[in-house]
Amino acid sequence: MPFPQSVRLVEVGPRDGLQNEPEPISTATKLELIDRLGVAGLRHIEAASFVSPKWVPQMADHREVMTGLARRPGVVYSALTPNLKGLEAALEGGVEEVAVFAAASESFSQKNINCSIAESLARFEPVLERARQADVRVRGYVSCVLGCPYEGEIAPSKVAEVSKALHEMGCYEVSLGDTIGTGTPLKARRMLESVARDMPMDRLAAHFHDTYGQALANLYAVLEEGIAVIDSSVAGLGGCPYARGASGNVASEDVVYLLHGLGIETGIDLETLADTGTWITRTIGRPNRSKVGVALAARG
Amino acid sequence: MPFPQSVRLVEVGPRDGLQNEPEPISTATKLELIDRLGVAGLRHIEAASFVSPKWVPQMADHREVMTGLARRPGVVYSALTPNLKGLEAALEGGVEEVAVFAAASESFSQKNINCSIAESLARFEPVLERARQADVRVRGYVSCVLGCPYEGEIAPSKVAEVSKALHEMGCYEVSLGDTIGTGTPLKARRMLESVARDMPMDRLAAHFHDTYGQALANLYAVLEEGIAVIDSSVAGLGGCPYARGASGNVASEDVVYLLHGLGIETGIDLETLADTGTWITRTIGRPNRSKVGVALAARG
Repeated sequence: MPFPQSVRLVEVGPRDGLQNEPEPISTATKLELIDRLGVAGLRHIEAASFVSPKWVPQMADHREVMTGLARRPGVVYSALTPNLKGLEAALEGGVEEVAVFAAASESFSQKNINCSIAESLARFEPVLERARQADVRVRGYVSCVLGCPYEGEIAPSKVAEVSKALHEMGCYEVSLGDTIGTGTPLKARRMLESVARDMPMDRLAAHFHDTYGQALANLYAVLEEGIAVIDSSVAGLGGCPYARGASGNVASEDVVYLLHGLGIETGIDLETLADTGTWITRTIGRPNRSKVGVALAARG
Repeated sequence: MPFPQSVRLVEVGPRDGLQNEPEPISTATKLELIDRLGVAGLRHIEAASFVSPKWVPQMADHREVMTGLARRPGVVYSALTPNLKGLEAALEGGVEEVAVFAAASESFSQKNINCSIAESLARFEPVLERARQADVRVRGYVSCVLGCPYEGEIAPSKVAEVSKALHEMGCYEVSLGDTIGTGTPLKARRMLESVARDMPMDRLAAHFHDTYGQALANLYAVLEEGIAVIDSSVAGLGGCPYARGASGNVASEDVVYLLHGLGIETGIDLETLADTGTWITRTIGRPNRSKVGVALAARG
C-alpha cells in the first residue's frame, strides 16, 4: 500500500504534554506555546482539558486558555471533556472540537476514570448528544491499545470493540493510544487491521508513545497500512506517568522528520517547530525529548 | 518479504561507543563492559581500535584490552585496524577478526582518514592480504551511506561501488553506516536495494545512528528488505561527533526490543543487557540513551 500523500498531525503538547507537570505553568506560557505551534504550521492543537482542577490542577486555567487563544484561521483548537459538565464549560469557552477518553483495558478504565468501559461509554452518550446540538465535533481516544500497565496484553478485538462503539456513537475520529509505549510494529499493524475491519481507516489516528523507543517504527508500520492522522507532542512533552523519567508522547519534530523523509506532506515548518520545542523545554525546565530538536539545536 | 528468523547483533559500544570519551576510562572498566555484554548474549563484540593513540587516546590500551579479555566460547571479539601496522599489533594481541573503515563520501574520507576513497581502498589491500595469511576475517565499514556532514546527499550508486569494492577485496561482511543519522526509511531501503544489486544481502549489515530518532524505523524498513545483521551500541554509547550532545549509535537494548517484538531471535537477554547499559553509563557518568534501558530502570 502506498503511503498517504499528506498526514495531519494532532499536537497534544499543550494538554497531554503539560497536564502532569507538577510546577504551575502560567497561562501566558501555554498561550504562547499554542500560538507558536500554530505559526509552525500545526492545524490541530489540543489546547486544554476541562477536567476537575482537583484531579488535574495544571489544567485549572482551561477557560482562560480557551478564551485567551489568538485563533488562527484554519487551525482547530480542541479540548478534552470527560463529561457533560466539562463539555458545558468548554462550550462557554468557545470550543469548536472536544475529545472523550475511553480505554481498551477494564483495569485501566477503573483506575484511570473510575468506571468500567461500558459505564464510560454510557457517560459519553449525553456528551456526544450535547456536542451534536452545539455543532461541535467529538474525537474519541482509546488508551492501552497495545498493552496495559495493569493487565499487560490487550486483545486487538477489545480495541476494535471500543473504537467501533465510539465511532458509532458519533466520534468523527478515534485515536488509538499506545499509552505505555510497549508496542512494536507487527503488533501495531495487527491491532490496526483488527480495528479497521469494523470502521473506516480514514477515521482512525495513531497516538503512540516512545517509552521503549519504538514509536517511529510503529508509525512507519501503520503508515504502510494507511493511517494518515498522527498524534504527537512537541519536544516529546509529557513523559510516561507509568515509568517516571522515561519518555511518553512521541515528539512532533521526530514524526515530522520521518514524514517529510517519506515524501509525505504535513504543512509544518520543521525548523520553527524545533525552535518551539527548544523554547518550551527551556521555559519549563524539562529535557527536550525530541532527537531532531536536540540535533538541530546542537548543529546550531 | 518475511523478516529473518534471527538477527545477529554486532555490539560496537566498547569501541565506537567509547572512543570519543574525553575522560580516560580504565582498561578494567572496558574489560568488564565487554564481559558483561558476553554474559548478556552478544556474540560479536567490537572490543578495541588499533589506531594511533595520537588520534584516539581513549583506545591507547587496545593491546591490554585484547589480551586481557576473558574469551567466551562462541563470541567473536573484533578490532578496528586502519592499516597494516594496526593489523600487526592486533594480531600480536590475538585478534580473530578485524575491521577496515571506508567512506561513501570523498569529503568525509579526506577529513576523516586523510585520503581519497580510492587511496583508502588501496591501503586496505595489504591489510586484507595479511589478514588472509593469518586466517583472520575482515569486516568492512562504509560510512556516510545516507548522508555526509560535508556533502549532504550521497548517491546510492556510490555506496554500492564502495561496498562492492570492499566485498571483492575479501571483506566477508560490509556494514553500511548512517554516520550522521539523517536517513529515513525509504532512503534506507533505496540505498540498500542499490547495494544489494552488486553483492549478496546476507553479506550486508546495517549500522544506523539515531541522531534524528529514525534508527529503529530505518532498521524496520531494511529488515523488511532482508537485512539480518545490525550494529548497535549498549545504552547508545557514543553520541554524535557532528552534533555534540545529540545521539549517535542506536542503542542495542532498543534494537533487541524491536527484534523480539517482531518475533526475531537474537540470543540476547534484554534485562541483562539493560542492566549492563545502566551500569556502564553510571560508571562513566553519561546519560543512558537507550529508551528501553531508561524505561526498565524506571519501572524498577
